[in-house]
Amino acid sequence: MHTRVIEVRNRSKLVTDITGQAIDFCDGLGDGLLHVFVPHATAGVALIETGSGSETDLEGAIERLLPRDDIYRHRHGSPGHGRDHVLPAFVSPSIVVPVISGETELGTWQSIVLVDTNGDNPHRMVRFSFVSG
Amino acid sequence: MHTRVIEVRNRSKLVTDITGQAIDFCDGLGDGLLHVFVPHATAGVALIETGSGSETDLEGAIERLLPRDDIYRHRHGSPGHGRDHVLPAFVSPSIVVPVISGETELGTWQSIVLVDTNGDNPHRMVRFSFVSG
Amino acid sequence: MHTRVIEVRNRSKLVTDITGQAIDFCDGLGDGLLHVFVPHATAGVALIETGSGSETDLEGAIERLLPRDDIYRHRHGSPGHGRDHVLPAFVSPSIVVPVISGETELGTWQSIVLVDTNGDNPHRMVRFSFVSG
Repeated sequence: MHTRVIEVRNRSKLVTDITGQAIDFCDGLGDGLLHVFVPHATAGVALIETGSGSETDLEGAIERLLPRDDIYRHRHGSPGHGRDHVLPAFVSPSIVVPVISGETELGTWQSIVLVDTNGDNPHRMVRFSFVSG
Repeated sequence: MHTRVIEVRNRSKLVTDITGQAIDFCDGLGDGLLHVFVPHATAGVALIETGSGSETDLEGAIERLLPRDDIYRHRHGSPGHGRDHVLPAFVSPSIVVPVISGETELGTWQSIVLVDTNGDNPHRMVRFSFVSG
Repeated sequence: MHTRVIEVRNRSKLVTDITGQAIDFCDGLGDGLLHVFVPHATAGVALIETGSGSETDLEGAIERLLPRDDIYRHRHGSPGHGRDHVLPAFVSPSIVVPVISGETELGTWQSIVLVDTNGDNPHRMVRFSFVSG
């Protein structure tokens, strides 16, 4: 298995596009599956369109669905941080993308993004792994 | 890696059962993992029971959680289409199913379904991939 | 492919930590991907922190987002059971975790948990599979 950990500096943004790093990782590999994994308990990975407003729309949706209010049992970190720990149950930290001849088979409008509501932690790790089966 | 792209004509339905096509794809393959992937930015894949009302229940849940209202930044397509671009963050376009002796190890009540809120696009692609590890 | 089915007795709890069983399963295997799969139509798998209140927070979030009310078409089982059948569209029954030298590469605060809102069924199966690629 090929595997690599990259560091993502998300500068407190909710959505950070990591498609370029994923494409770099797969370059020269053959046919297989790319696994994208975030080893953090307050972040997820998603495939969305970027650059047309959906980052802001996703932020709005998360605020409505999982508000940063004082309703959580988890009390570490900033107020409302308990919300960040619920996020990965709905936005999974694990996603798989098919790869053909070393190229990700993403759709035209799909980008691989880190989704991170936890502004306390601007540095994140992401692990890419490739199995050729 | 074995891989195949199928075309799904979902006729504007939210939920389209693709279990039969997945079973066909796995037939004759041995032990491994089936990856089901939708290369579209406004659709997801899920495992739910079909035929007992859950398709309608899922539609209702999506309408409540991600309403087709005029609250989105993304402005392409029909009004409220911005909602469709948020969906894949919560209903992932990627799912993996175990396969033993060429048969999917789905539970009795699990079906593989395409979840597509975007009525503008009645033709969809789904990619099946199989790695035997 | 290595694969094993374990039985989980969740005693009607929403969240059951199965990290220990996953670690046991991977012991002695090399580099690859661990697939965790729940063959049930009313349960999911997630990676969250356990032991600091997030189990309760997740329960609260699910009750807010997918209330156990009389609004579902699906009518089998206990009242509100239709909700349980919508859950897996949002909390997927499939997750993949990287494994290096037989050890899961989970983050410090990540645990693998079964998420099961269906109190009618206290016995659950979980299938672990490992592909080395």
